[in-house]
Amino acid sequence: MAYPKGKLSEEKVFKDPVHRYVHVRDALIWDLIGTREFQRLRRIKQLGTTYLTFHGAEHSRFNHSLGVYEIVRRIVDDVFKGRPEWDEGERELVLSAALLHDLGHGPFSHSFEKVFHLDHESFTRDIILGQTEVNEVLRRVSDDFPKHVAEVIAKTYQNKQVVSLISSQIDADRMDYLQRDAYYTGVSYGHFDMERILRVMRPREDQIVMKQSGMHAVEDYIMSRYQMYWQVYFHPVTRSAEVILTKILHRAKELHETGYIFTHAPVHFYSIFEGNVTTEDYIKLDESIVLFYFQAWEDEEDHVLADLCRRFMNRRLFQYTEFNPNEEMTKYFKLTALFKEAGIDPDYYLVVDSSSDLPYDFYRPGEEEERLPIHLLTQSGHIKELSRQSDIVDAISGKRRTDHKLYFPMDLIVDMSEKAEEKKAIMKLLGLG
Amino acid sequence: MAYPKGKLSEEKVFKDPVHRYVHVRDALIWDLIGTREFQRLRRIKQLGTTYLTFHGAEHSRFNHSLGVYEIVRRIVDDVFKGRPEWDEGERELVLSAALLHDLGHGPFSHSFEKVFHLDHESFTRDIILGQTEVNEVLRRVSDDFPKHVAEVIAKTYQNKQVVSLISSQIDADRMDYLQRDAYYTGVSYGHFDMERILRVMRPREDQIVMKQSGMHAVEDYIMSRYQMYWQVYFHPVTRSAEVILTKILHRAKELHETGYIFTHAPVHFYSIFEGNVTTEDYIKLDESIVLFYFQAWEDEEDHVLADLCRRFMNRRLFQYTEFNPNEEMTKYFKLTALFKEAGIDPDYYLVVDSSSDLPYDFYRPGEEEERLPIHLLTQSGHIKELSRQSDIVDAISGKRRTDHKLYFPMDLIVDMSEKAEEKKAIMKLLGLG
Amino acid sequence: MAYPKGKLSEEKVFKDPVHRYVHVRDALIWDLIGTREFQRLRRIKQLGTTYLTFHGAEHSRFNHSLGVYEIVRRIVDDVFKGRPEWDEGERELVLSAALLHDLGHGPFSHSFEKVFHLDHESFTRDIILGQTEVNEVLRRVSDDFPKHVAEVIAKTYQNKQVVSLISSQIDADRMDYLQRDAYYTGVSYGHFDMERILRVMRPREDQIVMKQSGMHAVEDYIMSRYQMYWQVYFHPVTRSAEVILTKILHRAKELHETGYIFTHAPVHFYSIFEGNVTTEDYIKLDESIVLFYFQAWEDEEDHVLADLCRRFMNRRLFQYTEFNPNEEMTKYFKLTALFKEAGIDPDYYLVVDSSSDLPYDFYRPGEEEERLPIHLLTQSGHIKELSRQSDIVDAISGKRRTDHKLYFPMDLIVDMSEKAEEKKAIMKLLGLG
Amino acid sequence: MAYPKGKLSEEKVFKDPVHRYVHVRDALIWDLIGTREFQRLRRIKQLGTTYLTFHGAEHSRFNHSLGVYEIVRRIVDDVFKGRPEWDEGERELVLSAALLHDLGHGPFSHSFEKVFHLDHESFTRDIILGQTEVNEVLRRVSDDFPKHVAEVIAKTYQNKQVVSLISSQIDADRMDYLQRDAYYTGVSYGHFDMERILRVMRPREDQIVMKQSGMHAVEDYIMSRYQMYWQVYFHPVTRSAEVILTKILHRAKELHETGYIFTHAPVHFYSIFEGNVTTEDYIKLDESIVLFYFQAWEDEEDHVLADLCRRFMNRRLFQYTEFNPNEEMTKYFKLTALFKEAGIDPDYYLVVDSSSDLPYDFYRPGEEEERLPIHLLTQSGHIKELSRQSDIVDAISGKRRTDHKLYFPMDLIVDMSEKAEEKKAIMKLLGLG
Repeated sequence: MAYPKGKLSEEKVFKDPVHRYVHVRDALIWDLIGTREFQRLRRIKQLGTTYLTFHGAEHSRFNHSLGVYEIVRRIVDDVFKGRPEWDEGERELVLSAALLHDLGHGPFSHSFEKVFHLDHESFTRDIILGQTEVNEVLRRVSDDFPKHVAEVIAKTYQNKQVVSLISSQIDADRMDYLQRDAYYTGVSYGHFDMERILRVMRPREDQIVMKQSGMHAVEDYIMSRYQMYWQVYFHPVTRSAEVILTKILHRAKELHETGYIFTHAPVHFYSIFEGNVTTEDYIKLDESIVLFYFQAWEDEEDHVLADLCRRFMNRRLFQYTEFNPNEEMTKYFKLTALFKEAGIDPDYYLVVDSSSDLPYDFYRPGEEEERLPIHLLTQSGHIKELSRQSDIVDAISGKRRTDHKLYFPMDLIVDMSEKAEEKKAIMKLLGLG
Repeated sequence: MAYPKGKLSEEKVFKDPVHRYVHVRDALIWDLIGTREFQRLRRIKQLGTTYLTFHGAEHSRFNHSLGVYEIVRRIVDDVFKGRPEWDEGERELVLSAALLHDLGHGPFSHSFEKVFHLDHESFTRDIILGQTEVNEVLRRVSDDFPKHVAEVIAKTYQNKQVVSLISSQIDADRMDYLQRDAYYTGVSYGHFDMERILRVMRPREDQIVMKQSGMHAVEDYIMSRYQMYWQVYFHPVTRSAEVILTKILHRAKELHETGYIFTHAPVHFYSIFEGNVTTEDYIKLDESIVLFYFQAWEDEEDHVLADLCRRFMNRRLFQYTEFNPNEEMTKYFKLTALFKEAGIDPDYYLVVDSSSDLPYDFYRPGEEEERLPIHLLTQSGHIKELSRQSDIVDAISGKRRTDHKLYFPMDLIVDMSEKAEEKKAIMKLLGLG
Repeated sequence: MAYPKGKLSEEKVFKDPVHRYVHVRDALIWDLIGTREFQRLRRIKQLGTTYLTFHGAEHSRFNHSLGVYEIVRRIVDDVFKGRPEWDEGERELVLSAALLHDLGHGPFSHSFEKVFHLDHESFTRDIILGQTEVNEVLRRVSDDFPKHVAEVIAKTYQNKQVVSLISSQIDADRMDYLQRDAYYTGVSYGHFDMERILRVMRPREDQIVMKQSGMHAVEDYIMSRYQMYWQVYFHPVTRSAEVILTKILHRAKELHETGYIFTHAPVHFYSIFEGNVTTEDYIKLDESIVLFYFQAWEDEEDHVLADLCRRFMNRRLFQYTEFNPNEEMTKYFKLTALFKEAGIDPDYYLVVDSSSDLPYDFYRPGEEEERLPIHLLTQSGHIKELSRQSDIVDAISGKRRTDHKLYFPMDLIVDMSEKAEEKKAIMKLLGLG
Repeated sequence: MAYPKGKLSEEKVFKDPVHRYVHVRDALIWDLIGTREFQRLRRIKQLGTTYLTFHGAEHSRFNHSLGVYEIVRRIVDDVFKGRPEWDEGERELVLSAALLHDLGHGPFSHSFEKVFHLDHESFTRDIILGQTEVNEVLRRVSDDFPKHVAEVIAKTYQNKQVVSLISSQIDADRMDYLQRDAYYTGVSYGHFDMERILRVMRPREDQIVMKQSGMHAVEDYIMSRYQMYWQVYFHPVTRSAEVILTKILHRAKELHETGYIFTHAPVHFYSIFEGNVTTEDYIKLDESIVLFYFQAWEDEEDHVLADLCRRFMNRRLFQYTEFNPNEEMTKYFKLTALFKEAGIDPDYYLVVDSSSDLPYDFYRPGEEEERLPIHLLTQSGHIKELSRQSDIVDAISGKRRTDHKLYFPMDLIVDMSEKAEEKKAIMKLLGLG
């Protein structure tokens, strides 16, 4: 039950700006990195449309996946190794799962998932278990190894220590992306003392705990995460690009369903539009395919599709204003009517978008989105939940923050010279008077 | 002769990991950034195939162009402003040229230029002077403003101070890319004290000089450049990907010329294959187009094209060995013959590639590649050439280093089980015995 | 009312690891830096005994003072200059006050102030107004310039904008020391986006406000401050060294008062012991003087003084345990009695030490320690208090955290072999059983 | 032959800005750090008078010594461990030698050694072998362990691998101080890829070699070293402070020898002045002692001593001019005569100071200052000398650079109003006309 090729004759390293080097000694990991399905992650950006706000955010999921692997490798090889609570037999499994956890992500995943009701997690499973190069490599370990890898990623694997390293409120995935996204965007948030966190991680029955002496590093991590969500991931300009992207996909699907004849027929999208996408179709879908069509569609006869594609490709985004759905629905309906009168289709050009985050949560069994809390290990060997020990985490624990914005194309409104009255009314409702 | 819109009502900033922030106060610059042709640079990687060696190097030319602009802005606004030797009237010109200097780069420029005899500099000129959004913005300054911008980039503009800021042995272009490429790849070369260099730059008649007190920062810059060339830009793994890319383009062109019927017809490439590419064709060409075809061609019937595309997309590169063209041509011809016998086309699978760099040069008038030297300004007001003052620069000045490698597909050779004798001979000649 | 020498013929720069360079163009600032009283700050550590916990924290107050000056210089020269709400006539004043704000600090200020009832702020005033080189330089601006500088530092100056830049909940002093102390200790806390904060600062009537677009940078600053207090400034090992230092000073004073004949007579301390220290006495007191005596006193006949000095010089600190003064006074009294029985003087060897911090406070007029809140400037021009806008600041606003520890010499207790019963009782009470 | 206490029950860490953390698992190392003689290094600056040029350079030799230990620990534990060419039995020895290699440094070592003909290396030996706490700890390993530690530091130990780790052209000492001094001064030189260098180090018979794949990192290290020498270590302002310091020591010694009665008798210096300093005398000498006297001597009756001390304490340094001893000795003698006429003692106020560095040297057996070259290990297992492989190292190899400057007190010359003619002549000779 180990990879037949064992260790590489010489360690391989990847130069990495976040972790300095990513070290690979296992032939298993080296072979997984070389698969076609893993190399495909080079053509999918880690942060989707964020590069239109933070121009530095052009890094790929390949980049991030190596980072998650490296963090887990350091934990199991430098911190857990030799500890009685850790089963060394799980090493190859947890390293493989770390490397492959994002394998099923497609281009601009969030938008695609939303519009086409896809689920990247189920594609991850399909790629790991299907007829792929990744599956072929994994099966060399043992017949049920691919299944175990898929279970770890799906969080159903029995050994919760292994699951926690990759998916929990403080896991290798988050620790890598916070630092990596901060590095590439250049923002000053996202920094925390990962060295210290790794040093205080301890395997315990069914979970990973943190020695209490590292509590402040954990606090700092939670604050970093909070800031990254609101400063980077939910940035309204990024959301604006996301809104446009979503509407392009909606429009193309609608056109396909209504029998519109595309000048540039979206052959790569047919199975997605029709809800019968295969694993192989999906693997072929990367950002260059999407951008190829978007560029082609800039010249489509359908005005909405062409306009939205030109906006996306040339970064002519929607403007936005704060929006409170509890109090302002009347306003929204008025705007909808006015847009229609002005000949601007509100289905595509007047969009409410919401962002929501729960920075940290203690354990609420049975509730939706139940999350395992972070546990501290005191010097006397007791285990305590983080928010009971940290004032600052307690202060934000369990407090969900939600933010709504209304997006619209300022340029089209400004151009409404022939509908002066509607224009005035729209401007007033949007607070642009 | 100034941009009619003048200054923005509020300064805009871009978060940049290298310069912290890029500041834009001029409506001219803001409008140029918003053009379709400039936004296109987001879809062209700064370092071509380097991301296949250094996974962090996924940044675009958009990214770098903003950086060059910011460096020039700091020089003219913080250092030169108010000095009698500097003509403030050149400010809009030099900022525009800095921003647009790479506008004509296409995807994987070096390979495309080599195979199709294109020249990115002439495309830069065409885009600036042609019927483009960039041209429309520039013309708002004055009718001959686009021409002046093109001249600065072509180094033919009369005011050599302006030219030097963008193209010389120590210019804003190099200062940005060395730092930026080091940042994204994560290598420890590429760092130097740009703050100091900027502070000691002085405009003088027909040139920019450096106060002698900054000489060591300049030395450090030259060493950084040297290391970046050999450690990053000429990395043999990157060159291997470049070799494959070049051979894909060659093959596709050849197939097109011989009337081969592509399953996926390369419509975007026709005018390039046929040598009649228009500015508009060229603007449409970005990396997503190229990768779209390469993925499609993985399934072409032509074995060579399909194989090379699969290699490129899935990073299955050629191996290499040192090669001395002066002494080893016989060996090369023997290998060529053996490859043919083995059914491996040497035109595509046995490639000599050379890298060459001259780290710094003093002035050699009349010679090919004549380069203007770096001049130091002594405390007493004299001007001295750098290599006369710096032992370390003198030591490497004028010394070209060239390196040749022979690339080949190890996997195909290993698989030559049916041609045991040729295999053995090839292995021996390649030193793999 | 301006410095007669005006600007330096050439700008001077100091290489600074935190701000890259500190720039000096004003002859006034250059001359102040050159005074004997300012140079003395080189011999006083910024963080007192912290270097015994974080070995990197060996930087001086000279270092920090230049940093505060540089931040204020950037605010007034790069951000405020030309704004109608800012009076350019205050420039020399605010720069001088920034540079000199810590002038009255002595070696290990906190301990000295506590034991001898000194006040560094009043010494700052005395040095600025007394017969000193600093005063001589300041008077060249105008007769009442020294007085104004002293007022700004004492927060009594009428223009509250000037005061706020140096003393408020987000001032140049704090912004420099958080970053500088983080840099020298090497901790990962203490980072925040100062560039952004500076860019959003705006002078308003009687205060400095922050544009709301910079709110998250301000949040991050407040969190950094919080972490630095608990992770660095209140570190229990640092406090242990502080406890010992305080006890050395107590003991020396007591010995002096009781007529003890020192082998190494503390001539430099006489006036401090006797409460009649002059400004000149005080200026002479730096860390080398203190450490000179501490080394000498290692050989004093008085066992307590000698032992405490040996502990301090050779870093043999007290251990500590958590202590709750509300519930554990009985335990404390029992320990006091047991220490006495064991011949260990509890006045010197059993010490309760408390740390307390209020991370941020909104305005509570009339209360002790009244603090001016941080105000945000909304896009529509309204001014709002920070904790009303920021969930995360609201969560910690006004919440004081206090921490008590009991310090004792573990080695002496372990050595109590002849008093086995008392030893056992002490160990049990200290939870060391 | 191992430390009886073995490993610590829990690893201790020091937060370090350069290496992030310094890790201590060996009780031997922990106990050595706790000795009085090692703690004394906290009171001796790593870079002597450099803090008067680069205000950040206030770090101590304690700081650096921990860093050298950590680098060696990483080499032996992470890179060498398990390799057949490395004798694990040398581990405790090499770690101890790394930690203690600077133990015999005193305050401002270079000046003290020069004036009093002391030798810090022999004091290191004396402290390790004498009746000290360090010796007591070392002897617990074995009776001859102290002797071996001293031999490693003196480079006479038989196993040259062990010696090379601490003293060679690329050793842990240099790798730490280049990075550390760069960090604290804030200069941008001093950076190189130590991670890579450590990874390519290999133990071989009688030496440590570098895998050729790391050659460029080694080149970068040599260039960093070169820049640090000329930009930081030999900075003329630092040398000016050093010149003054040296002259203070000369004067005090001279006064003592001629029977001058000091107001503040230099009891701590007597044995040094008289050439009979004991190890215990030496251990007591730290920077606070030196600065204590220098401050006291500011008020001495002897004008020269008082003036020089005031200069040093308040940073009123000598100016300097380039000086060529081969051509300008006549000028120097003229200046000497003029200084005498003007009543300024040239023995103390007109000083030639020389700096000299050889950036790298190949092996020149038998020559003075014979240095072992850096050897590269090729892929085929051959060993080649660095300068034969690296163009850039070859270019500077064996080329000594020497620089001479003439130091003088500008203020005294400017004040020579009563000797107008001599003043004019001096100014002219010094090029200040």
